[in-house]
Amino acid sequence: MDKFDTRSEDDMKIGIIGLGKMGYPLALQLKDRGHTPVAFNRSPEKVDNIKNEGVEGAYTLENLLSKLDIPRIVFMMIPAGEAVDSMIASLSPLLSQGDILIDGGNSHYKDTKKRYAIMKDQGIHYMDVGTSGGVDGARNGACMMVGGDREAVAQVEKALQDLCVENGYAHVGPSGSGHYVKMIHNGIEYGMMQAIGEGFEILSESEYDIDHQQVAKLWQHGSVIRSWLMELTENVFIQHDDQLKDIVGVVNASGEGLWTVEEALERKVPAPAITASLFARYRSQQADTFSGKLLAGLRFQFGGHKMETK
Amino acid sequence: MDKFDTRSEDDMKIGIIGLGKMGYPLALQLKDRGHTPVAFNRSPEKVDNIKNEGVEGAYTLENLLSKLDIPRIVFMMIPAGEAVDSMIASLSPLLSQGDILIDGGNSHYKDTKKRYAIMKDQGIHYMDVGTSGGVDGARNGACMMVGGDREAVAQVEKALQDLCVENGYAHVGPSGSGHYVKMIHNGIEYGMMQAIGEGFEILSESEYDIDHQQVAKLWQHGSVIRSWLMELTENVFIQHDDQLKDIVGVVNASGEGLWTVEEALERKVPAPAITASLFARYRSQQADTFSGKLLAGLRFQFGGHKMETK
Amino acid sequence: MDKFDTRSEDDMKIGIIGLGKMGYPLALQLKDRGHTPVAFNRSPEKVDNIKNEGVEGAYTLENLLSKLDIPRIVFMMIPAGEAVDSMIASLSPLLSQGDILIDGGNSHYKDTKKRYAIMKDQGIHYMDVGTSGGVDGARNGACMMVGGDREAVAQVEKALQDLCVENGYAHVGPSGSGHYVKMIHNGIEYGMMQAIGEGFEILSESEYDIDHQQVAKLWQHGSVIRSWLMELTENVFIQHDDQLKDIVGVVNASGEGLWTVEEALERKVPAPAITASLFARYRSQQADTFSGKLLAGLRFQFGGHKMETK
Amino acid sequence: MDKFDTRSEDDMKIGIIGLGKMGYPLALQLKDRGHTPVAFNRSPEKVDNIKNEGVEGAYTLENLLSKLDIPRIVFMMIPAGEAVDSMIASLSPLLSQGDILIDGGNSHYKDTKKRYAIMKDQGIHYMDVGTSGGVDGARNGACMMVGGDREAVAQVEKALQDLCVENGYAHVGPSGSGHYVKMIHNGIEYGMMQAIGEGFEILSESEYDIDHQQVAKLWQHGSVIRSWLMELTENVFIQHDDQLKDIVGVVNASGEGLWTVEEALERKVPAPAITASLFARYRSQQADTFSGKLLAGLRFQFGGHKMETK
Repeated sequence: MDKFDTRSEDDMKIGIIGLGKMGYPLALQLKDRGHTPVAFNRSPEKVDNIKNEGVEGAYTLENLLSKLDIPRIVFMMIPAGEAVDSMIASLSPLLSQGDILIDGGNSHYKDTKKRYAIMKDQGIHYMDVGTSGGVDGARNGACMMVGGDREAVAQVEKALQDLCVENGYAHVGPSGSGHYVKMIHNGIEYGMMQAIGEGFEILSESEYDIDHQQVAKLWQHGSVIRSWLMELTENVFIQHDDQLKDIVGVVNASGEGLWTVEEALERKVPAPAITASLFARYRSQQADTFSGKLLAGLRFQFGGHKMETK
Repeated sequence: MDKFDTRSEDDMKIGIIGLGKMGYPLALQLKDRGHTPVAFNRSPEKVDNIKNEGVEGAYTLENLLSKLDIPRIVFMMIPAGEAVDSMIASLSPLLSQGDILIDGGNSHYKDTKKRYAIMKDQGIHYMDVGTSGGVDGARNGACMMVGGDREAVAQVEKALQDLCVENGYAHVGPSGSGHYVKMIHNGIEYGMMQAIGEGFEILSESEYDIDHQQVAKLWQHGSVIRSWLMELTENVFIQHDDQLKDIVGVVNASGEGLWTVEEALERKVPAPAITASLFARYRSQQADTFSGKLLAGLRFQFGGHKMETK
Repeated sequence: MDKFDTRSEDDMKIGIIGLGKMGYPLALQLKDRGHTPVAFNRSPEKVDNIKNEGVEGAYTLENLLSKLDIPRIVFMMIPAGEAVDSMIASLSPLLSQGDILIDGGNSHYKDTKKRYAIMKDQGIHYMDVGTSGGVDGARNGACMMVGGDREAVAQVEKALQDLCVENGYAHVGPSGSGHYVKMIHNGIEYGMMQAIGEGFEILSESEYDIDHQQVAKLWQHGSVIRSWLMELTENVFIQHDDQLKDIVGVVNASGEGLWTVEEALERKVPAPAITASLFARYRSQQADTFSGKLLAGLRFQFGGHKMETK
Repeated sequence: MDKFDTRSEDDMKIGIIGLGKMGYPLALQLKDRGHTPVAFNRSPEKVDNIKNEGVEGAYTLENLLSKLDIPRIVFMMIPAGEAVDSMIASLSPLLSQGDILIDGGNSHYKDTKKRYAIMKDQGIHYMDVGTSGGVDGARNGACMMVGGDREAVAQVEKALQDLCVENGYAHVGPSGSGHYVKMIHNGIEYGMMQAIGEGFEILSESEYDIDHQQVAKLWQHGSVIRSWLMELTENVFIQHDDQLKDIVGVVNASGEGLWTVEEALERKVPAPAITASLFARYRSQQADTFSGKLLAGLRFQFGGHKMETK
């Protein structure tokens, strides 16, 4: 048995890059499941923290890679975009043929495909893992949508499955497909959330004095719309007053909803509900709109309708 | 020639009820076109005013009706809803068989049909006139969509045509159809205005430093989207700075856009653009939304995403 | 103990009117839970059927009511609209003061409020129960949103709770509120379904050869969008080919989605996603559209763009 | 006076590349306005045709360029995308420093900016002209939105103005801005058309027997929505039966509506009406939808609702 075979199926050593909201709990979970994460983060404080929780840490990429068995398995959990390209540029000279590099973040599938091609030229396996389930899922059992070559996926499948709830893991296709399926997942999430938001807003404006928390709880049990999002809705009403007076209704959008809409546009698929959800978020980020100003001005022009000015 | 025939085709005597933004200029225009309006308004000041412009006035409905030839022609230009029912209740005992009562406002066509039926039982002709063209149209030449019995319409057609620009008058069908066509007109207006608003908002956010006034002027000349609304758009930019900084983007909705959407829903006609236009107006009237609050709360629940609170 | 008190808390006798898709299984479940349903249906065949399953039947309303304890509890599970008014008209002379009449169907809350007022004048308690969970829920544990007077609700609460899954029962407010909350539930359902539909349509058009059934299963486990609707989505793909070639994409709308949108419009709540969902259903019912015809014609007019004709 | 100055302001010699629906009439109009177009087209038949109308023709690019004065002015009126890049590649070695190359088609502004930069490196002025007004405008007076360097624009301004109706010409900004403004113009056009389409579809489904042609004519005169598109709407009803029975409602989308929506998404501008218009077109191109199939399947799953199969 040579050094390449020291890793048993039940104990995989995996480099985790990025100890943010998702990477940190994933590393912890990996450890809990009997694997050996080695954790790296750009800012060293989080490495200190996770070492205090018993996870092996590394303060440089070189150090991280030196601690991994060959072929190395490196799981990046960092923000999509430039950060990923930059990390790949740093890792690339340090990796060897046969190593496996995984992007567990929310990258655009087209970026993933490009990176896969570049890595392939260097003999490095590049995989994409769309991860759902939120922070709690990352800690206690996530849902993972995996894209990449069968051969590479097979080598890490055990560890990824261990990070997921039962049946919460699937290899969905070649490079990019994991991120693609995750992107669509998030598009659906936008639509579901918006539908829930609209429903509760109408409730809140109704002639009845509806107890939102009671209804959110009720709908989780036996109704057609029972769902994890409804559980979370109840949590929101538990943690805040029933009118949500203390929350500012600005809703950010981190990219995948936008990409879903762009993909729909490109594929000529009508996606009015998901798109409405995205626009509602954009609108929530505006204090006033140019469109509204112009329309108020137009109504004054033709009808002499009152126009507020400042 | 008996007293019923004193009115020549070229000089009709018409009672105008309501000297608001539309009724006042319509009365003036009627006079300019060689007819004889007799003007009534709930608050007497406007009657005083219009008398100063040479229009005959009346300070009570009884007085108004006494000044009209028989069969009397009464044109109501008052707010839709209760005001119309209330006015009809007041007029009803004062009118005689064969008189013609016209609702020139923006009543719902279903209300118009009910009122028509009630008036018909009393032998009174009830007509509906949808009036477009704004305040300027009311003064200088409007567009009128007329509903009602052929027989009654024929009696007032000359005067109505005189109030309209050439080809801007049409008898479109039986009772309610005038208001129906006007309702749809306004629904289209909502959609057109929203499209213009969205377009200029994108322009205003573009990487270019576009001169909105220049573009609004340009698009009126030779383009596919040349329209009166584009002329008014230029006017808005002429009268305000190019970023419309002094206008508050709250856009009111007076009813017909809503009714158009309700009609679409009832008839199972998809009307996504007009509906989006209406919702954009409603949204402009909200400072914050319950939906946005809930979604911000949900994003915090599952993803630990930052949530603004107050 | 007089005859009015023979009913123990653990055994309620309830008249069920309407043995359709929901009423039939609810009657069976009531029996399974230790209660005594007495079943009536307009067409007698279903009464025959349910008698064969051990449920007491009645072939006339008189007979049904004679079999119930006083105060009588009658649960209507019939189509919304005329059918309910007609049934109330038939039942009304047969009911006595203190009887409880429940509408378990999908009535509009405004109708419910009117009926409540009429029944109240006769001393009859009128309750509304919005029932969710589909056919399976009706048989094995539903979700019920109950509106009505506290006093009446208290009398039937035990039986209704027995028909629901744990925590799947709530008295949400006064008359109409049960149907109101159910209406909003269905509005949210429309939005969630549409979001799922759009997501899978994009998947089906993607460059990847995605296994829809696999993804639907995957998303039930650990993902943010895990939900009963996702379970049903998997079932659809289990029972049909992955491209759903054998299903015709015509989607009906039974009323509550429409009412949710109408309520949103009335309350000035922007509800773009739910409305888009409703319009998508309406559109699915059209083979071709007048709007499309006109736009194709317009494009030919200004641009000479090819227009298909027939 | 050297050869570079033979061109008077009143007679410009301009190479026209592309004799399609727009290029052909633009060449003719240029001639009518006292200029000297030299026309080239990939397929020679159209060159033959336009020569028969008295326009000078060229059958090769070399020949075309040899016939132009220096600095040469070349106006491309060809399909956006590959065709433009390919044409530029062919023209590039044949052009000289100081020549002016104009893209009069519907290119994406980002492509235009890239091409501008490449041409600038070669000392060639690259301009973008967004052209509106349809085929009729191209022949009789268009609307042109011009982007590019002031210096280059000044040299061709006279000819372009001559091709436009009065005030229908404007230099709106640097490279790309002409195509940008045209893109937004088309986005607005989509929204206006959809609003008109929806309005007439509701009319067509109303309880009234509305004469669509009459209404389209009426709305052109004095109404708030009077516009060229309404004129064209009347033309559609003049040339077809009032129910448009012979037109198939498939509505194509040539790119700029899509780009407007993509731009809105990128700039975080809510553009629900324009987007709804685009989706309605996409939907019109689908005979059935995957989304609809899945929803029909889902309704059967939970509610036992009838599902059409084939």
